[in-house]
Formats: sequence, C-alpha cells, structure tokens
Amino acid sequence: MKRIAFSLVGVAAVAGAVAYIGHAYGQAKGEAATVFVNNIPQGYRDWSLISVAHEEGNFNSFGAILGNNVAIKAYREGKLPFPDGTIIAALHYSHTASEENNKVFGRFQSFVAGAPTNIQFMVKDSKQYATTGGWGFAHFKDAKPADDAFMNTCFPCHNQAKARDLVFTRYAP
Amino acid sequence: MKRIAFSLVGVAAVAGAVAYIGHAYGQAKGEAATVFVNNIPQGYRDWSLISVAHEEGNFNSFGAILGNNVAIKAYREGKLPFPDGTIIAALHYSHTASEENNKVFGRFQSFVAGAPTNIQFMVKDSKQYATTGGWGFAHFKDAKPADDAFMNTCFPCHNQAKARDLVFTRYAP
Repeated sequence: MKRIAFSLVGVAAVAGAVAYIGHAYGQAKGEAATVFVNNIPQGYRDWSLISVAHEEGNFNSFGAILGNNVAIKAYREGKLPFPDGTIIAALHYSHTASEENNKVFGRFQSFVAGAPTNIQFMVKDSKQYATTGGWGFAHFKDAKPADDAFMNTCFPCHNQAKARDLVFTRYAP
Repeated sequence: MKRIAFSLVGVAAVAGAVAYIGHAYGQAKGEAATVFVNNIPQGYRDWSLISVAHEEGNFNSFGAILGNNVAIKAYREGKLPFPDGTIIAALHYSHTASEENNKVFGRFQSFVAGAPTNIQFMVKDSKQYATTGGWGFAHFKDAKPADDAFMNTCFPCHNQAKARDLVFTRYAP
C-alpha cells in the first residue's frame, strides 16, 4: 500500500469556543487523511470528573478522566453516541507509593498521583474525524503532541469499544 | 474523663451559599464540643479535580479528590493554611479490575472505579471547627453520615499532617 507523506495541514474544528488544529498523516491512495488533535483544549484542568483509572504493567499509570460540559451532560443522560463538541481528557500520572501517607497509616497502602506522564484527549467531531469514528485523538507529553506512528495506535484500540462509542471510561456516580 | 452525651445540635456554618448543620458529640467537662458536618455540600460532583488516590489493604479504595473554588484557588497558589470556605471532597469507589478493558488490552492491567463506597468532606471554618484544627469532617455512606465513634477517628489521623494543614492530598498539576 503506497503511503504519501503529508506535512502539517491546518484543519479547524470548532468545539465550544476553541479551534483545534489537527494534522493529517500518511494515507493510502484514495483514502481520507487521518486527522489528529494537535492543540491542548483550553480550560480542561477545570472540567468535571468522569472517573478515575489505573493501569498496571508497563503503564503503571494513575489517571483522572475529565469531561467538558457537553461530555458530562451526555454521560449523565446516558446519551450515545456522544454529540459533536464532546471533549474527554485523560490526565495521567505515575502510580506512586506515598511515603508520607504510609508513615501516618503505619503500613504500606497509599498510592498517589506522582509525576505527570501524559495528557490525552478525545474530541468528537463526526465530520472532521470521520475516518476515526468521529473522534479526534490527542496525546501530549510535556505539552508536545506525539508523533504519527504513536497516534496511529489510538483508533484501532478504541474502536474495540464500539458499543460505548469508542470510549472506555464509564461515568462514576 | 467524664463524657457527656449530646443529642443533635444544629450549628450553622456558611461556606459559599450552603449552610451546614453539624452535630456535637460527647465532650469532656469544660471542653468545647466536637462538631461534624452532617449535610452533603451542594454541587460537589461538579467541582474541579485536586488529585486521585488509591488505598490498598482493607480499604481497596479508588478515590477522586475534588475541591470547591476556594480550595482549588488555595491549592494553585500554594496557600496554607486553607482559608475559611474551603471544601475538599473525597469520592471513594472500590478499586475494581475492569474485565471489559482487560479483554481489549489482552492482559490483566486495568482498574476502574467500581461501586461507590463513601464520600468524605473536609470543610474549613476556623471558628466553628476550632476544636478539630479548623476543619469539619464528614463521611457519608449511601448519603447517610457516619456515627460519632467513627467520626471521632478523623481528626487524630489528619492532625498528623499538620505541615499541610491536616490535608493529605497534594495537588496534581
């Protein structure tokens, strides 16, 4: 399959008041380019909680999943698929034993958010991200977006959660 | 030490727009009564994230720590002690393996928020809660406050985190 290398292509998607610039990467002849999210959505750190997540193994990650107002409303109403404008943020930290807490408890039991590892976003825009189930994916490490080879792994994995519109995280009451 | 049993005592503390009704419990002669928080602060589920927490052992808990605007501002400014009006919420769930996620990953690694176990609050009012470091403590299970014997354990434990104004949780960036 011949792949054509694309340079950065500006694509504007309006989700709330924020314009997202995506980039297209190598695509097969005749296929639409896959567009990723390159800009960190504004204000995400103040969004409401969807749930928490912990991945063991190589990840050793401790996550907080937040949603903008559109996301939270859809979750609470049990609305699927998520409407355009939905943005879900996954703030990942290392899953780190807390020495200071364990000292107080008198036993090894307490884990906290250690150093930030990455922030991921899913931005719903059924037109702009039509080739990836309507979702634009983003992964930032130290505020820098991941490369295309990495980003190419997002959709195939999330696509296995089709019954939940590609979103793994369930809402914690 | 003689202890006098108190019935519920209404104590109004204004933190934001919400009035909290606490209750005093058995107190030693001449000492001020310890007052706990009996009402769930309004709107806490929409508050911003402070951090995440995981306790192993008997707890097996998975927590999200949220703060009202006063709390978040104080955390971000590194302000200690926390000002009156601060409310910190700890939403606790069981730390539960996610079969559906593990299926996708092809390995046992994913933990999510299971059933809610309890919600705890710390409400800062240096006058009302003077006998417990300026913090009113709350613990709700199925929306019902814990009994006094249980609540009596909050302060001695939190009081070991004096350098952080009795708050264990640090802010996750």
